[in-house]
Amino acid sequence: MSDLILHNYFRSSASVRVRAALNLKGLDYSYTPYALLLNEHKSEGYLGLNPQGLVPALEIGKKAVLTQSMAIIEYLDEAYPKPPLMPSTALERARVRSLAQITGCDIHPVNNLRILRFISDEYGVREDGKAAWFRHWAATGFMALETRLALEPETGEFCHGAAPGLADIHLYAQVLNNARFNVDPAPYPTIMRIFEACDALSAFQDARPENQPDAY
Amino acid sequence: MSDLILHNYFRSSASVRVRAALNLKGLDYSYTPYALLLNEHKSEGYLGLNPQGLVPALEIGKKAVLTQSMAIIEYLDEAYPKPPLMPSTALERARVRSLAQITGCDIHPVNNLRILRFISDEYGVREDGKAAWFRHWAATGFMALETRLALEPETGEFCHGAAPGLADIHLYAQVLNNARFNVDPAPYPTIMRIFEACDALSAFQDARPENQPDAY
Repeated sequence: MSDLILHNYFRSSASVRVRAALNLKGLDYSYTPYALLLNEHKSEGYLGLNPQGLVPALEIGKKAVLTQSMAIIEYLDEAYPKPPLMPSTALERARVRSLAQITGCDIHPVNNLRILRFISDEYGVREDGKAAWFRHWAATGFMALETRLALEPETGEFCHGAAPGLADIHLYAQVLNNARFNVDPAPYPTIMRIFEACDALSAFQDARPENQPDAY
Repeated sequence: MSDLILHNYFRSSASVRVRAALNLKGLDYSYTPYALLLNEHKSEGYLGLNPQGLVPALEIGKKAVLTQSMAIIEYLDEAYPKPPLMPSTALERARVRSLAQITGCDIHPVNNLRILRFISDEYGVREDGKAAWFRHWAATGFMALETRLALEPETGEFCHGAAPGLADIHLYAQVLNNARFNVDPAPYPTIMRIFEACDALSAFQDARPENQPDAY
Protein backbone atom coordinates (compact mmCIF):
# COMPACT_ATOMS: atom_id res chain seq x y z
CA MET A 1 0.00 0.00 0.00
CA SER A 2 1.51 3.25 -1.18
CA ASP A 3 1.46 6.35 0.99
CA LEU A 4 0.95 8.46 -2.14
CA ILE A 5 -2.67 9.19 -3.09
CA LEU A 6 -3.30 10.99 -6.36
CA HIS A 7 -6.56 12.91 -6.51
CA ASN A 8 -7.20 13.41 -10.19
CA TYR A 9 -9.30 12.92 -13.32
CA PHE A 10 -8.43 10.74 -16.26
CA ARG A 11 -8.73 13.45 -18.89
CA SER A 12 -7.20 16.36 -16.96
CA SER A 13 -4.01 17.50 -18.63
CA ALA A 14 -2.37 18.48 -15.35
CA SER A 15 -3.26 15.02 -14.02
CA VAL A 16 -1.57 13.37 -17.01
CA ARG A 17 1.58 15.29 -16.11
CA VAL A 18 1.70 14.11 -12.51
CA ARG A 19 0.90 10.52 -13.47
CA ALA A 20 3.76 10.58 -16.00
CA ALA A 21 6.15 11.94 -13.36
CA LEU A 22 5.10 9.29 -10.82
CA ASN A 23 5.55 6.60 -13.48
CA LEU A 24 8.97 7.90 -14.59
CA LYS A 25 10.07 7.74 -10.94
CA GLY A 26 8.67 4.21 -10.64
CA LEU A 27 6.44 5.26 -7.73
CA ASP A 28 3.35 3.34 -6.76
CA TYR A 29 0.28 5.41 -5.87
CA SER A 30 -3.40 5.10 -5.09
CA TYR A 31 -5.78 6.61 -7.64
CA THR A 32 -8.78 8.64 -6.46
CA PRO A 33 -10.92 9.95 -9.33
CA TYR A 34 -13.09 13.08 -9.40
CA ALA A 35 -15.64 13.48 -12.17
CA LEU A 36 -15.07 17.09 -13.18
CA LEU A 37 -18.19 17.18 -15.34
CA LEU A 38 -20.20 16.36 -12.18
CA ASN A 39 -18.25 19.03 -10.23
CA GLU A 40 -16.89 16.46 -7.79
CA HIS A 41 -13.75 18.63 -7.49
CA LYS A 42 -15.95 21.35 -5.98
CA SER A 43 -17.26 19.07 -3.20
CA GLU A 44 -16.69 20.07 0.41
CA GLY A 45 -14.47 17.05 0.89
CA TYR A 46 -12.14 17.91 -1.94
CA LEU A 47 -12.07 21.63 -1.16
CA GLY A 48 -10.83 20.59 2.28
CA LEU A 49 -7.86 18.95 0.57
CA ASN A 50 -7.36 21.68 -2.04
CA PRO A 51 -9.19 24.98 -1.49
CA GLN A 52 -8.53 25.86 -5.11
CA GLY A 53 -10.86 23.06 -6.21
CA LEU A 54 -8.63 21.99 -9.09
CA VAL A 55 -7.08 18.60 -9.80
CA PRO A 56 -4.60 17.08 -9.33
CA ALA A 57 -3.58 17.00 -5.68
CA LEU A 58 -1.06 14.55 -4.29
CA GLU A 59 -1.53 13.39 -0.72
CA ILE A 60 1.65 12.23 0.96
CA GLY A 61 0.82 9.94 3.87
CA LYS A 62 -0.32 12.07 6.79
CA LYS A 63 2.32 14.67 6.02
CA ALA A 64 0.99 16.97 3.34
CA VAL A 65 -1.33 17.57 0.43
CA LEU A 66 0.53 19.00 -2.55
CA THR A 67 -1.23 20.96 -5.28
CA GLN A 68 -0.31 22.53 -8.62
CA SER A 69 1.16 20.00 -11.03
CA MET A 70 4.46 21.80 -11.67
CA ALA A 71 5.09 22.12 -7.94
CA ILE A 72 4.19 18.46 -7.42
CA ILE A 73 6.59 17.31 -10.14
CA GLU A 74 9.44 19.42 -8.77
CA TYR A 75 8.72 17.91 -5.34
CA LEU A 76 8.84 14.38 -6.72
CA ASP A 77 12.14 15.17 -8.40
CA GLU A 78 13.63 16.51 -5.17
CA ALA A 79 12.27 13.75 -2.93
CA TYR A 80 13.04 10.89 -5.36
CA PRO A 81 16.10 12.02 -7.33
CA LYS A 82 16.42 8.99 -9.64
CA PRO A 83 15.95 9.21 -12.55
CA PRO A 84 16.25 13.02 -12.62
CA LEU A 85 13.52 15.04 -14.32
CA MET A 86 15.65 18.20 -14.25
CA PRO A 87 19.15 18.87 -15.60
CA SER A 88 22.09 19.58 -13.32
CA THR A 89 22.92 23.28 -13.77
CA ALA A 90 20.91 26.36 -12.87
CA LEU A 91 20.91 27.69 -16.44
CA GLU A 92 19.72 24.35 -17.81
CA ARG A 93 17.00 24.12 -15.19
CA ALA A 94 15.86 27.62 -16.15
CA ARG A 95 15.61 26.49 -19.74
CA VAL A 96 13.58 23.40 -18.88
CA ARG A 97 11.27 25.28 -16.53
CA SER A 98 10.64 27.98 -19.14
CA LEU A 99 9.82 25.37 -21.79
CA ALA A 100 7.39 23.68 -19.39
CA GLN A 101 5.82 27.00 -18.42
CA ILE A 102 4.92 27.88 -21.99
CA THR A 103 2.38 25.08 -21.60
CA GLY A 104 1.91 25.17 -17.83
CA CYS A 105 1.23 28.92 -17.65
CA ASP A 106 0.35 30.23 -21.08
CA ILE A 107 -1.54 27.43 -22.84
CA HIS A 108 -3.25 25.10 -20.43
CA PRO A 109 -4.69 27.46 -17.77
CA VAL A 110 -6.21 29.59 -20.53
CA ASN A 111 -7.81 26.57 -22.18
CA ASN A 112 -9.06 24.48 -19.31
CA LEU A 113 -12.61 23.44 -18.52
CA ARG A 114 -13.50 26.38 -16.28
CA ILE A 115 -12.50 28.93 -18.91
CA LEU A 116 -14.34 27.15 -21.73
CA ARG A 117 -17.41 26.95 -19.50
CA PHE A 118 -17.15 30.67 -18.73
CA ILE A 119 -16.96 31.88 -22.33
CA SER A 120 -19.91 29.64 -23.12
CA ASP A 121 -22.03 30.78 -20.16
CA GLU A 122 -21.13 34.49 -20.26
CA TYR A 123 -20.55 35.22 -23.94
CA GLY A 124 -22.69 32.52 -25.54
CA VAL A 125 -19.72 30.97 -27.31
CA ARG A 126 -20.78 27.62 -28.82
CA GLU A 127 -18.87 24.39 -29.28
CA ASP A 128 -17.12 25.47 -32.48
CA GLY A 129 -16.19 28.80 -30.87
CA LYS A 130 -14.80 27.06 -27.80
CA ALA A 131 -12.69 24.85 -30.06
CA ALA A 132 -11.47 27.95 -31.92
CA TRP A 133 -10.48 29.58 -28.60
CA PHE A 134 -8.60 26.41 -27.59
CA ARG A 135 -6.80 26.15 -30.91
CA HIS A 136 -5.80 29.82 -30.89
CA TRP A 137 -3.99 29.68 -27.56
CA ALA A 138 -2.57 26.21 -28.17
CA ALA A 139 -1.16 27.31 -31.53
CA THR A 140 0.24 30.57 -30.12
CA GLY A 141 2.14 28.73 -27.41
CA PHE A 142 3.18 25.76 -29.53
CA MET A 143 4.58 27.99 -32.28
CA ALA A 144 6.95 29.55 -29.71
CA LEU A 145 7.76 26.16 -28.21
CA GLU A 146 8.47 24.68 -31.64
CA THR A 147 10.73 27.61 -32.57
CA ARG A 148 12.73 27.24 -29.39
CA LEU A 149 13.04 23.46 -29.54
CA ALA A 150 14.06 23.56 -33.19
CA LEU A 151 16.68 26.32 -32.69
CA GLU A 152 18.20 25.69 -29.28
CA PRO A 153 21.21 23.36 -29.28
CA GLU A 154 20.25 21.76 -25.96
CA THR A 155 17.31 20.01 -27.59
CA GLY A 156 18.03 16.33 -28.08
CA GLU A 157 15.90 13.24 -28.41
CA PHE A 158 13.82 14.93 -25.74
CA CYS A 159 13.32 18.62 -24.90
CA HIS A 160 16.62 18.75 -23.06
CA GLY A 161 19.11 16.08 -24.01
CA ALA A 162 18.60 12.34 -24.14
CA ALA A 163 16.20 11.71 -21.26
CA PRO A 164 12.63 12.85 -20.57
CA GLY A 165 11.94 15.44 -17.88
CA LEU A 166 9.70 18.29 -16.76
CA ALA A 167 9.43 19.94 -20.18
CA ASP A 168 8.63 16.67 -21.96
CA ILE A 169 5.91 15.86 -19.44
CA HIS A 170 4.22 19.18 -20.20
CA LEU A 171 4.66 18.80 -23.94
CA TYR A 172 3.21 15.28 -23.89
CA ALA A 173 0.08 16.19 -21.94
CA GLN A 174 -0.58 19.21 -24.15
CA VAL A 175 -0.22 17.26 -27.41
CA LEU A 176 -2.81 14.78 -26.13
CA ASN A 177 -5.07 17.66 -25.17
CA ASN A 178 -4.63 19.34 -28.55
CA ALA A 179 -5.77 16.20 -30.33
CA ARG A 180 -9.15 16.44 -28.58
CA PHE A 181 -9.67 19.85 -30.18
CA ASN A 182 -8.25 18.91 -33.59
CA VAL A 183 -5.19 21.15 -33.39
CA ASP A 184 -3.23 20.50 -36.59
CA PRO A 185 0.14 19.00 -35.55
CA ALA A 186 1.83 19.71 -38.92
CA PRO A 187 3.45 23.04 -37.93
CA TYR A 188 5.20 21.41 -34.96
CA PRO A 189 7.55 18.71 -36.27
CA THR A 190 10.03 18.97 -33.40
CA ILE A 191 7.30 18.86 -30.79
CA MET A 192 5.71 15.86 -32.49
CA ARG A 193 9.06 14.06 -32.77
CA ILE A 194 9.55 14.50 -29.01
CA PHE A 195 5.97 13.47 -28.35
CA GLU A 196 6.59 10.20 -30.21
CA ALA A 197 9.77 9.59 -28.22
CA CYS A 198 7.76 10.00 -25.01
CA ASP A 199 4.88 7.92 -26.29
CA ALA A 200 7.24 5.00 -26.87
CA LEU A 201 7.82 4.80 -23.11
CA SER A 202 5.46 2.91 -20.81
CA ALA A 203 5.69 5.70 -18.19
CA PHE A 204 3.91 8.01 -20.61
CA GLN A 205 1.59 5.38 -22.07
CA ASP A 206 0.43 4.45 -18.58
CA ALA A 207 -0.36 8.11 -17.88
CA ARG A 208 -2.68 8.46 -20.88
CA PRO A 209 -6.31 9.29 -20.11
CA GLU A 210 -7.70 6.16 -21.73
CA ASN A 211 -5.57 3.94 -19.50
CA GLN A 212 -7.05 5.23 -16.23
CA PRO A 213 -9.71 3.48 -14.11
CA ASP A 214 -12.23 6.34 -14.47
CA ALA A 215 -11.89 6.58 -18.27
CA TYR A 216 -15.06 6.14 -20.29
CA MET B 1 27.95 47.85 -15.84
CA SER B 2 25.86 44.83 -14.95
CA ASP B 3 25.79 41.76 -17.17
CA LEU B 4 22.08 41.35 -16.41
CA ILE B 5 19.69 43.02 -18.86
CA LEU B 6 16.00 42.93 -18.02
CA HIS B 7 13.69 43.23 -21.01
CA ASN B 8 10.39 44.30 -19.55
CA TYR B 9 7.52 46.77 -19.22
CA PHE B 10 6.77 48.92 -16.22
CA ARG B 11 3.19 47.75 -15.76
CA SER B 12 3.62 44.05 -16.59
CA SER B 13 2.87 41.94 -13.55
CA ALA B 14 5.43 39.29 -14.47
CA SER B 15 7.99 42.09 -14.86
CA VAL B 16 7.20 43.38 -11.35
CA ARG B 17 7.97 39.89 -10.06
CA VAL B 18 11.39 39.65 -11.65
CA ARG B 19 12.32 43.20 -10.61
CA ALA B 20 11.37 42.38 -7.02
CA ALA B 21 13.49 39.22 -7.12
CA LEU B 22 16.50 41.09 -8.55
CA ASN B 23 16.09 43.77 -5.87
CA LEU B 24 15.74 41.23 -3.04
CA LYS B 25 19.01 39.66 -4.23
CA GLY B 26 20.65 43.09 -4.39
CA LEU B 27 21.51 42.59 -8.05
CA ASP B 28 22.20 45.47 -10.40
CA TYR B 29 20.64 45.23 -13.87
CA SER B 30 20.11 47.22 -17.04
CA TYR B 31 16.51 48.09 -17.85
CA THR B 32 15.25 47.76 -21.43
CA PRO B 33 11.60 48.78 -21.82
CA TYR B 34 9.08 47.51 -24.38
CA ALA B 35 5.84 49.43 -24.87
CA LEU B 36 3.32 46.59 -24.96
CA LEU B 37 0.52 48.85 -26.14
CA LEU B 38 2.65 49.62 -29.22
CA ASN B 39 3.41 45.89 -29.65
CA GLU B 40 7.14 46.44 -29.23
CA HIS B 41 7.32 42.95 -27.68
CA LYS B 42 6.21 41.54 -31.05
CA SER B 43 9.10 43.19 -32.94
CA GLU B 44 11.52 41.00 -34.85
CA GLY B 45 14.32 42.01 -32.52
CA TYR B 46 12.50 40.94 -29.40
CA LEU B 47 11.13 37.75 -30.93
CA GLY B 48 14.75 36.84 -31.61
CA LEU B 49 15.37 37.04 -27.87
CA ASN B 50 12.09 35.43 -26.85
CA PRO B 51 10.08 33.66 -29.57
CA GLN B 52 7.07 33.71 -27.25
CA GLY B 53 6.91 37.51 -27.55
CA LEU B 54 6.08 38.01 -23.88
CA VAL B 55 7.92 40.06 -21.27
CA PRO B 56 9.99 39.75 -19.18
CA ALA B 57 13.18 38.16 -20.47
CA LEU B 58 16.46 38.30 -18.58
CA GLU B 59 19.64 38.39 -20.61
CA ILE B 60 22.68 37.06 -18.80
CA GLY B 61 25.84 38.43 -20.39
CA LYS B 62 26.53 36.48 -23.55
CA LYS B 63 25.46 33.25 -21.90
CA ALA B 64 21.70 32.97 -22.11
CA VAL B 65 18.32 34.63 -22.39
CA LEU B 66 15.94 33.43 -19.72
CA THR B 67 12.17 33.66 -20.09
CA GLN B 68 9.11 32.93 -17.96
CA SER B 69 9.16 34.87 -14.70
CA MET B 70 8.88 31.87 -12.35
CA ALA B 71 11.76 30.14 -14.12
CA ILE B 72 13.82 33.35 -13.97
CA ILE B 73 13.21 33.79 -10.25
CA GLU B 74 14.14 30.17 -9.49
CA TYR B 75 17.31 30.69 -11.53
CA LEU B 76 18.21 33.83 -9.58
CA ASP B 77 17.66 31.93 -6.35
CA GLU B 78 19.93 29.11 -7.45
CA ALA B 79 22.66 31.33 -8.93
CA TYR B 80 22.62 33.89 -6.09
CA PRO B 81 21.59 31.94 -2.99
CA LYS B 82 21.57 34.85 -0.50
CA PRO B 83 19.06 35.81 0.74
CA PRO B 84 17.05 32.69 -0.15
CA LEU B 85 13.70 33.09 -1.88
CA MET B 86 12.80 29.45 -1.27
CA PRO B 87 12.66 27.43 1.98
CA SER B 88 15.05 24.60 2.71
CA THR B 89 13.01 21.38 2.48
CA ALA B 90 11.33 19.79 -0.53
CA LEU B 91 7.88 19.82 1.12
CA GLU B 92 8.22 23.49 2.00
CA ARG B 93 9.37 24.36 -1.50
CA ALA B 94 6.35 22.51 -2.89
CA ARG B 95 4.11 24.63 -0.66
CA VAL B 96 5.73 27.89 -1.77
CA ARG B 97 5.67 26.94 -5.44
CA SER B 98 2.02 25.96 -5.27
CA LEU B 99 1.11 29.26 -3.59
CA ALA B 100 3.00 31.16 -6.30
CA GLN B 101 1.39 29.11 -9.07
CA ILE B 102 -2.14 30.00 -7.97
CA THR B 103 -1.23 33.45 -9.28
CA GLY B 104 1.43 32.49 -11.81
CA CYS B 105 -0.69 29.86 -13.58
CA ASP B 106 -4.33 30.34 -12.70
CA ILE B 107 -4.84 34.09 -12.29
CA HIS B 108 -2.33 36.11 -14.25
CA PRO B 109 -2.10 34.23 -17.59
CA VAL B 110 -5.89 34.22 -17.83
CA ASN B 111 -6.08 37.96 -17.17
CA ASN B 112 -3.21 39.41 -19.13
CA LEU B 113 -3.31 41.89 -21.98
CA ARG B 114 -3.49 39.39 -24.84
CA ILE B 115 -6.54 37.64 -23.35
CA LEU B 116 -8.38 40.87 -22.61
CA ARG B 117 -7.66 42.02 -26.16
CA PHE B 118 -8.98 38.73 -27.52
CA ILE B 119 -12.32 38.76 -25.69
CA SER B 120 -12.76 42.36 -26.81
CA ASP B 121 -11.87 41.70 -30.46
CA GLU B 122 -13.62 38.34 -30.83
CA TYR B 123 -16.62 38.57 -28.52
CA GLY B 124 -17.14 42.35 -28.42
CA VAL B 125 -16.60 42.48 -24.68
CA ARG B 126 -16.33 46.15 -23.60
CA GLU B 127 -14.25 47.81 -20.91
CA ASP B 128 -16.67 46.97 -18.08
CA GLY B 129 -16.91 43.37 -19.31
CA LYS B 130 -13.13 43.05 -19.46
CA ALA B 131 -12.91 44.35 -15.89
CA ALA B 132 -15.56 41.81 -14.84
CA TRP B 133 -13.55 39.01 -16.48
CA PHE B 134 -10.42 40.15 -14.66
CA ARG B 135 -12.17 40.39 -11.31
CA HIS B 136 -13.79 36.97 -11.68
CA TRP B 137 -10.51 35.09 -12.14
CA ALA B 138 -8.60 37.24 -9.66
CA ALA B 139 -11.26 36.63 -7.01
CA THR B 140 -11.46 32.89 -7.73
CA GLY B 141 -7.72 32.49 -7.27
CA PHE B 142 -7.36 34.89 -4.37
CA MET B 143 -10.17 33.21 -2.40
CA ALA B 144 -8.21 29.94 -2.53
CA LEU B 145 -4.93 31.70 -1.74
CA GLU B 146 -6.51 33.53 1.21
CA THR B 147 -7.99 30.28 2.57
CA ARG B 148 -4.66 28.53 2.40
CA LEU B 149 -2.61 31.37 3.86
CA ALA B 150 -5.10 31.85 6.70
CA LEU B 151 -5.29 28.13 7.58
CA GLU B 152 -1.81 26.76 6.99
CA PRO B 153 0.52 26.95 9.98
CA GLU B 154 3.59 27.71 7.85
CA THR B 155 2.24 31.18 7.05
CA GLY B 156 4.12 33.84 9.01
CA GLU B 157 4.77 37.51 8.53
CA PHE B 158 5.17 36.48 4.89
CA CYS B 159 3.63 33.61 2.91
CA HIS B 160 6.14 31.16 4.33
CA GLY B 161 7.73 32.20 7.60
CA ALA B 162 9.48 35.45 8.41
CA ALA B 163 11.16 36.38 5.13
CA PRO B 164 9.81 37.19 1.67
CA GLY B 165 10.20 34.71 -1.17
CA LEU B 166 8.74 33.35 -4.39
CA ALA B 167 5.13 33.24 -3.15
CA ASP B 168 5.26 36.80 -1.75
CA ILE B 169 6.66 38.12 -5.02
CA HIS B 170 3.70 36.65 -6.89
CA LEU B 171 1.19 37.85 -4.30
CA TYR B 172 2.62 41.38 -4.37
CA ALA B 173 2.51 41.77 -8.14
CA GLN B 174 -1.05 40.42 -8.31
CA VAL B 175 -2.35 42.76 -5.58
CA LEU B 176 -0.95 45.71 -7.54
CA ASN B 177 -2.58 44.37 -10.69
CA ASN B 178 -5.92 43.84 -8.93
CA ALA B 179 -5.99 47.47 -7.84
CA ARG B 180 -5.98 48.59 -11.48
CA PHE B 181 -9.24 46.68 -12.01
CA ASN B 182 -10.81 47.68 -8.68
CA VAL B 183 -10.79 44.20 -7.16
CA ASP B 184 -12.17 44.63 -3.64
CA PRO B 185 -9.38 43.66 -1.19
CA ALA B 186 -11.74 43.23 1.79
CA PRO B 187 -12.20 39.42 1.45
CA TYR B 188 -8.43 38.87 1.59
CA PRO B 189 -7.14 40.13 4.97
CA THR B 190 -4.21 37.70 5.14
CA ILE B 191 -3.12 38.47 1.59
CA MET B 192 -3.35 42.20 2.26
CA ARG B 193 -1.41 41.89 5.53
CA ILE B 194 1.40 40.14 3.64
CA PHE B 195 1.18 42.68 0.82
CA GLU B 196 1.73 45.47 3.35
CA ALA B 197 4.72 43.63 4.84
CA CYS B 198 6.24 43.41 1.35
CA ASP B 199 5.35 46.99 0.50
CA ALA B 200 7.32 48.18 3.54
CA LEU B 201 10.51 46.88 1.89
CA SER B 202 12.44 48.94 -0.65
CA ALA B 203 13.02 45.83 -2.82
CA PHE B 204 9.29 45.70 -3.50
CA GLN B 205 8.77 49.47 -3.63
CA ASP B 206 11.53 49.77 -6.22
CA ALA B 207 9.81 47.11 -8.34
CA ARG B 208 6.51 49.00 -8.52
CA PRO B 209 5.37 50.08 -11.97
CA GLU B 210 5.33 53.78 -11.15
CA ASN B 211 8.98 53.69 -10.13
CA GLN B 212 10.27 52.48 -13.51
CA PRO B 213 11.87 54.65 -16.21
CA ASP B 214 9.15 53.88 -18.79
CA ALA B 215 6.25 54.69 -16.45
CA TYR B 216 3.82 57.35 -17.60
